[in-house]
Amino acid sequence: MRSVVRCPAINRQSLLSALVLLLCLSALLLPISAPAQTPPLPGGLLPSWNDGSAKQAIFDFVRATIDRSNPNYVSPEDRVAVFDQDGTLWVEHPMYTQVVYCLERVPAVVAKRPELKNVEPFKTLLSGNSEAMAKLSMPDLEKILAATLTGMTVEDFNAEAKNWLEAAKHPRWDRLYTELVYQPMLEVLRYLRDNAYKTYIVTGGGQDFVRVYAEKVYGIPPEQVVGTAGGTKFGYAKDGKPFLTKEAKLLLNDNNAGKPEGIHLMIGRRPYAAFGNSTGDRQMLEWTGAGSGARLKMLVLHDDAAREYAYGPAQGLPDSRVGSFTPALYDEAKKRGWTVISMKNDWRRIFAFE
Amino acid sequence: MRSVVRCPAINRQSLLSALVLLLCLSALLLPISAPAQTPPLPGGLLPSWNDGSAKQAIFDFVRATIDRSNPNYVSPEDRVAVFDQDGTLWVEHPMYTQVVYCLERVPAVVAKRPELKNVEPFKTLLSGNSEAMAKLSMPDLEKILAATLTGMTVEDFNAEAKNWLEAAKHPRWDRLYTELVYQPMLEVLRYLRDNAYKTYIVTGGGQDFVRVYAEKVYGIPPEQVVGTAGGTKFGYAKDGKPFLTKEAKLLLNDNNAGKPEGIHLMIGRRPYAAFGNSTGDRQMLEWTGAGSGARLKMLVLHDDAAREYAYGPAQGLPDSRVGSFTPALYDEAKKRGWTVISMKNDWRRIFAFE
Repeated sequence: MRSVVRCPAINRQSLLSALVLLLCLSALLLPISAPAQTPPLPGGLLPSWNDGSAKQAIFDFVRATIDRSNPNYVSPEDRVAVFDQDGTLWVEHPMYTQVVYCLERVPAVVAKRPELKNVEPFKTLLSGNSEAMAKLSMPDLEKILAATLTGMTVEDFNAEAKNWLEAAKHPRWDRLYTELVYQPMLEVLRYLRDNAYKTYIVTGGGQDFVRVYAEKVYGIPPEQVVGTAGGTKFGYAKDGKPFLTKEAKLLLNDNNAGKPEGIHLMIGRRPYAAFGNSTGDRQMLEWTGAGSGARLKMLVLHDDAAREYAYGPAQGLPDSRVGSFTPALYDEAKKRGWTVISMKNDWRRIFAFE
Repeated sequence: MRSVVRCPAINRQSLLSALVLLLCLSALLLPISAPAQTPPLPGGLLPSWNDGSAKQAIFDFVRATIDRSNPNYVSPEDRVAVFDQDGTLWVEHPMYTQVVYCLERVPAVVAKRPELKNVEPFKTLLSGNSEAMAKLSMPDLEKILAATLTGMTVEDFNAEAKNWLEAAKHPRWDRLYTELVYQPMLEVLRYLRDNAYKTYIVTGGGQDFVRVYAEKVYGIPPEQVVGTAGGTKFGYAKDGKPFLTKEAKLLLNDNNAGKPEGIHLMIGRRPYAAFGNSTGDRQMLEWTGAGSGARLKMLVLHDDAAREYAYGPAQGLPDSRVGSFTPALYDEAKKRGWTVISMKNDWRRIFAFE
């Protein structure tokens, strides 16, 4: 059934909006393997970055905040850096990976609950009729998200997501989604951690979904993944053993204003560095920038259609979609002195496999 | 006005129940001072513990889980230990410290909002009439909690709580509340951290309140404090500077089943060690114990009226209050092999100032 999803004719804007509603994604309670072991950096620090103002801004920030004699010195326990995920750490086109996951899970869900086979929107999704699929509404998508992300134990969700991530491939590169992480950003994560920064993901995507692979892929442990989160319900099996079930109850919508609110809830410190790529990250960068001393605020601009994608102001078009880099955001970045990272000019290499 | 609270005639059971509803406690976004520097331990490990099965259980657990050749070895990134706070890390009698805080804040709140002066329950609370105060209802208490814990910025709340904690004293010992932490538990926290365990507080008390002092008092940073948490609302001041306001919206009631649910939300790993003292910790200990391998589950029994307090099964009385150590909990501990810590017999010293 994977082909159902490979060529999604479903309206992308609706899907992008739908992700905002992802409430119930799930959980990593199984032990994860040890953090990714990356080989020593060749060619000095940030080797996948070209020289330029973006690379320099990162260096300047780190050097200032780790130098005890600098007025902008930050004590190690306060060194917090936050990263959006989709479009900032890995590819978000043509569709958020987690939305692909939800759509591809439908056949398995229907197999377990055959009564859904003739119920919309599952019927349409299973039909493979792309014209009909394009007409799926927001309530339809919400039903799909609820059916694929809630109602199971956190362990079951974790195992399902892990299995999928180990097999599903991106249509353009024919590679695992977890291979489509930006090598320059992996280097920034590592450079910050080497300087005692605690690195967090703060994503509109599902907290439980991202936790499944964040430690292995980014070296970020589950407790440092903040995302859109749903409630769980504690209960007992017949043998008395307790378990947690994922519920369709939204606790944190970690987009827009929800990002600083989520940072307060889950971290309780204002970040010193924030990386994003869209309007959904605006408030997080504003909140970071409103602190005293040196604060690093960076936005990834997707302007490289040849090596990745070009969208937002790189195309010179207004773009009002959720999660997009609008001209207004670009203006705010210039006004507030945020650093825009041009994928085309600032990144020598985009993926590790190149 | 402090005397209003010093001799509270308010029904303690109601107050205990009320704490469950603490939603909106607030935030530590100001940088905290460096983690507490404790001097080297005299007399070996856990010097404030008497030899016995409780001390031995801690040693056995740590030795097994850090020894690579042991079948119960736990890799460092999975070493998570969780601690209830009230009654487990510090004194909870005659009233939860945070409830005292809320009651004592009333005069300051009324000074800022004089219209409350003639409105119940504020009028009664300001009267000092202990008979009338004893009749305050749950909705009254909820109004007090909402007025004292919400509606301000996270920075303002933090500053108010910090100021109070630096001055308010416990009526029995005439010492700061933050001095009434159990020295044997500080030693356990340190011993676990020295062996690469990440120590968390998982409290029914307010996450934002506890974060104000947890780093200084327990060496536990704000991001490792999980508690009852309310929402915040992101907004902008007239000058465009963003701020977060504490809202009266409950996100996590971190008691009973809410404890494992909160652990899932905020940590995303099952703990290997859990410490509690009441029925509110039952599900957290069950959740911890349901994991594979060695898991340490401990309950502090308050059986030392001379040095601290005696309540719960130590008095041989049924006790159905929220947050109490009931005979049923005592039975479950025996049945499941949890270790009960007798304050009287297992602790050589209770407070650092002794």
